[in-house]
Amino acid sequence: MMIKIREPLLLTPGPLTTSHTTKNALKKDWGSRDQAFINLTENIRKKLLSLANAQRDHVCIPMQGSGTFAIEAMLGTLIPRNGSVLVLINGAYGERIANILKVLGRTYRTIKFPSNEALDPTLINNALKSNKDITDVAMVHCETTSGVLNPLDEIAKLVSKNKCRLFIDAMSSFGGIPINAKYIAFDGLAASANKCIECVPGVAFVLARKIHLEQCSANSHSLSLDLYDQWQGLQKNGQWRFTPPTQIIAALDSALDQLNDEGGIGFRFARYWENCQVLISGMKDIGFETYLPDETQAPIIVTFIAPSDDTGFNFEKFYSILAREGYLIYPGKLTTHNSFRIGCIGNIKAEDIQNLLIVVSNSLKEMNITLIANEIK
Amino acid sequence: MMIKIREPLLLTPGPLTTSHTTKNALKKDWGSRDQAFINLTENIRKKLLSLANAQRDHVCIPMQGSGTFAIEAMLGTLIPRNGSVLVLINGAYGERIANILKVLGRTYRTIKFPSNEALDPTLINNALKSNKDITDVAMVHCETTSGVLNPLDEIAKLVSKNKCRLFIDAMSSFGGIPINAKYIAFDGLAASANKCIECVPGVAFVLARKIHLEQCSANSHSLSLDLYDQWQGLQKNGQWRFTPPTQIIAALDSALDQLNDEGGIGFRFARYWENCQVLISGMKDIGFETYLPDETQAPIIVTFIAPSDDTGFNFEKFYSILAREGYLIYPGKLTTHNSFRIGCIGNIKAEDIQNLLIVVSNSLKEMNITLIANEIK
Repeated sequence: MMIKIREPLLLTPGPLTTSHTTKNALKKDWGSRDQAFINLTENIRKKLLSLANAQRDHVCIPMQGSGTFAIEAMLGTLIPRNGSVLVLINGAYGERIANILKVLGRTYRTIKFPSNEALDPTLINNALKSNKDITDVAMVHCETTSGVLNPLDEIAKLVSKNKCRLFIDAMSSFGGIPINAKYIAFDGLAASANKCIECVPGVAFVLARKIHLEQCSANSHSLSLDLYDQWQGLQKNGQWRFTPPTQIIAALDSALDQLNDEGGIGFRFARYWENCQVLISGMKDIGFETYLPDETQAPIIVTFIAPSDDTGFNFEKFYSILAREGYLIYPGKLTTHNSFRIGCIGNIKAEDIQNLLIVVSNSLKEMNITLIANEIK
Repeated sequence: MMIKIREPLLLTPGPLTTSHTTKNALKKDWGSRDQAFINLTENIRKKLLSLANAQRDHVCIPMQGSGTFAIEAMLGTLIPRNGSVLVLINGAYGERIANILKVLGRTYRTIKFPSNEALDPTLINNALKSNKDITDVAMVHCETTSGVLNPLDEIAKLVSKNKCRLFIDAMSSFGGIPINAKYIAFDGLAASANKCIECVPGVAFVLARKIHLEQCSANSHSLSLDLYDQWQGLQKNGQWRFTPPTQIIAALDSALDQLNDEGGIGFRFARYWENCQVLISGMKDIGFETYLPDETQAPIIVTFIAPSDDTGFNFEKFYSILAREGYLIYPGKLTTHNSFRIGCIGNIKAEDIQNLLIVVSNSLKEMNITLIANEIK
């Protein structure tokens, strides 16, 4: 029997498995107001901007905390207090945007779609045409609740045509799925270090349209989450207003270099896509069903329907067998189905997924479960 | 000539120099919803509570981001929307508390003291007695602007007598200067991982009085910074609502064990106190003046008056010589004097300060500066 010495692989939507190089970059103390760290901050801001081809019209503002902190900072700072927001919802992260606006006391309405369908541009266009007071639209690119990829290009075009601003939660897509600011008009895009950029968690960021941001002084409901002030602080002397997570910024710089070395977002997308295909086809062979049809599935995280109780399937048992064998998967987040999720992102490749599939198969034997291969395939 | 292989020592108020053990604890990926990480979170919450002897009446709520995020979360969640706050100010961090309350739209007034003096309990008592509408008092324990230690014990007693709640910014003191909840009544205390606890930055925390916190649902102006919701999330299943900085939590757990191994806060205080004495007496011997009288100086960070321009002293030059020799110091933050600051905290000992003093002395020779030893000593 082999002794396992590696850490468990995180097959989750992040925090995820990072490379040794990224983790090694954590091992240094930095003076947060020293020139070396000022340079590091400038580097990551430039690299993040260029990932979206957004150097011309946008600025990158990093924000301490989780991705939600950056989303809240983006909405609170970049949506005027008298703005009227349409929130496009097909999962929990769309709901969270609405929830943030509710806590902030902003005017918003929602348009909701089933969680197993992508956002529908036609219905959104109709909503914008019949509600002329709407100034801002907010949406999630890849809705991690189900794993569905929303049609950002189409929606961005119709939001532009209706003369609204667009705010994108690109948390689980940025760095893994191309977003080109030359073709997709947005006033704000928020994402996090610990998703497709494959860094550790602790910092997030917003790409903000500069001419709009310049008008957003004193919009924010919060001192800590004021994106305008955070930007002004960086502009003044390159330093963060409040203590940055220095080690994580160093790891982010390294992770961004590794993304570049891999060949950029296109190559990373291809690797995730292969992980996703191997995962879905292997799981279907074992007898699992995916929640989403293939055509709306993003290569980020896949939702599988949990087999019915009468098969003897139990998620906690399944999770712990996989964990014992070195694979951490993710619980489901659907309200309508028992489900579980397996991530395709992080420093993992198709071979890792193939090894996972063997473990999944063996786990069913260990639980004495036989799945009848479903007919979807 | 010796080749320097060590990293620069950070003689700052944090981020500061951490131990190899702490940095090594960063080198692992954690599933943020896995039981191993749930246990880690529970451990750090317990250890932080016990540092203040606060297990009986308080709960510990960690918060992503810098210390200011935790201060804002504490004020926004634990001060009722109809509360009336007295903010005690003798430096920039007291001003920041007032600034947060202003952005939050809360009712507050301030009482200001000179930055080279500790907060005066008698005047504070008078202010409370003549303003019976005040419900809450907020203050900084060690004001890092100057390095002054405020008389927390006395102020806490009179705040209690006047039947107000007390909120403490203990950012730069917690873990290095004893605060015992059995003798000091507080409803909220905020601090950060990367000060006297000697962890890397990226997470902060609040110790909140439980019976008060229970009444603070929907007080917060922010979703991300809602301390009540953050607490409820942890109570529900031990998981964080939003992605935690997993690696930093692991490092914090290690740093807390190292604090315990050192003998606890008393022993750490003694080490910082020795660092501070060696620093002050050595710098005075060289000819520098401290900004504060010794009796109000906390052993955290020392403000030195910059020698006048006619001596030829230039801070940028001084900083860069020290940086070249491996010591990063801190600029001043006083509005009234040119000054600079040198920290006594972090994984450093008296010997490191002695080595710094040699470098300081040599730097003056290199800049051709002679200081006349001042008379204060």
